[in-house]
Amino acid sequence: MIRLDLIGIGTGNPDHLTAQASRVLNEADLILLPRKGSAKSDLADLRRTICAAVLARPVQIAEFDMPVRDAEGDYAQAVNAWHDAIASVWRDQIGLHLPQGGRVALLVWGDPSLYDSTLRIAGRLTRAGMDVAVRVVPGITSIQALTAAHAIPLNPLAGPVTVTTGRALRAHGWPADADTIVVMLDSGCAFEVLNPEGISIWWGAYLGMAHEALEHGSLAEAAPRIATRRAALRARHGWIMDVYLMRKEQADGNR
Amino acid sequence: MIRLDLIGIGTGNPDHLTAQASRVLNEADLILLPRKGSAKSDLADLRRTICAAVLARPVQIAEFDMPVRDAEGDYAQAVNAWHDAIASVWRDQIGLHLPQGGRVALLVWGDPSLYDSTLRIAGRLTRAGMDVAVRVVPGITSIQALTAAHAIPLNPLAGPVTVTTGRALRAHGWPADADTIVVMLDSGCAFEVLNPEGISIWWGAYLGMAHEALEHGSLAEAAPRIATRRAALRARHGWIMDVYLMRKEQADGNR
Repeated sequence: MIRLDLIGIGTGNPDHLTAQASRVLNEADLILLPRKGSAKSDLADLRRTICAAVLARPVQIAEFDMPVRDAEGDYAQAVNAWHDAIASVWRDQIGLHLPQGGRVALLVWGDPSLYDSTLRIAGRLTRAGMDVAVRVVPGITSIQALTAAHAIPLNPLAGPVTVTTGRALRAHGWPADADTIVVMLDSGCAFEVLNPEGISIWWGAYLGMAHEALEHGSLAEAAPRIATRRAALRARHGWIMDVYLMRKEQADGNR
Repeated sequence: MIRLDLIGIGTGNPDHLTAQASRVLNEADLILLPRKGSAKSDLADLRRTICAAVLARPVQIAEFDMPVRDAEGDYAQAVNAWHDAIASVWRDQIGLHLPQGGRVALLVWGDPSLYDSTLRIAGRLTRAGMDVAVRVVPGITSIQALTAAHAIPLNPLAGPVTVTTGRALRAHGWPADADTIVVMLDSGCAFEVLNPEGISIWWGAYLGMAHEALEHGSLAEAAPRIATRRAALRARHGWIMDVYLMRKEQADGNR
């Protein structure tokens, strides 16, 4: 019997950790820690830093190399095959280090519910016949880190919010019925496909981290500024994770 | 000069508190603690419990009675007048207890960005000429507590999510372009306006608290069950806060 704890750790600020996350991490028999390649080594380093800061007792940490997603062919198929490969590595590591079963913890960037595959990968263990009980510990998301850094509300007063992806924004434009949208998983400035008229943007990268970067303004004015800064930051750090909120300006007259 | 820290405290589980929230609370010179009337006294009690558990030094705590929102007339006007009244009470309390200025903390249910008025009320202090610097500390939201309790992803694979209100769902039905929606601020079972065909629901009340209640299933089957349980819980506790996620069943074939 395996208990698998998926622990949200926030967006790069060890201070984002909740008391629950610290406690559950300390209850683990084994922590699985992915290595993601040198470009994103900051992220693996952060997980190691958190373990070192939070663990009050020795816990076995198994580092493993993340399988690489096939960039060719059908997107959904490639993602499914990639998740299968990751599940297989988890299974091997758990079998190797906890042959009698026990408590396994995974540190998940942000919150395991939001644009993260950990829950879907964990589901594969169950479907493969492993006796696994999955528990989720929520963590601060990049959306919350963004709104906190800008000190803005997510939603207009009593109004809806749509959370979407850069890919969806490029494919379908501004979502119907939405006054406020948050764009995640954007490989680069999908806001450039929009007519900027009447839209404001609040942008953030490396949220919660020491090199956090913020920009905001009308989309017409801010878009080229963000694109330039994003390219420079990406070149400097070797990777970038950013997220942004856009609001139609008339939508928030009650702020 | 006033520094006003709006501290997200999660949804009722003191374990939701982040390390940052604990630290910032301990830096306060004054904590403003609203009393909301006996029906919701659990919530004020929770704030007191958190202060008692987290404060490592004596911090002055000023309890104040929350003004009551006018239930008559135009909704937006009533909300604006109510926010004005709350800002006025804050100003009085700060003037009384910190005439020389200092650091003021407010404990905000969930996260200050999400369907919470604290940021809008704080904006009134600045507009009234007070020298106020607002800082936001993110906290676990009821949406995250819901998805964690059910161990489900918020979004379908790479797909969008719309967060909306019970009022909007009643007025406009299922949002256009959405496969997954989260409904907040529902005064009671707005999902009953929908054709339940092909929709699944994950519902939670008192999330993170000792009497947390969860239900899920197809909407057709679960809706009457949730309505009955919700009424019974509300009668027993004198108040209820609930939130739910609904997904069109075909939307998540890749889970």
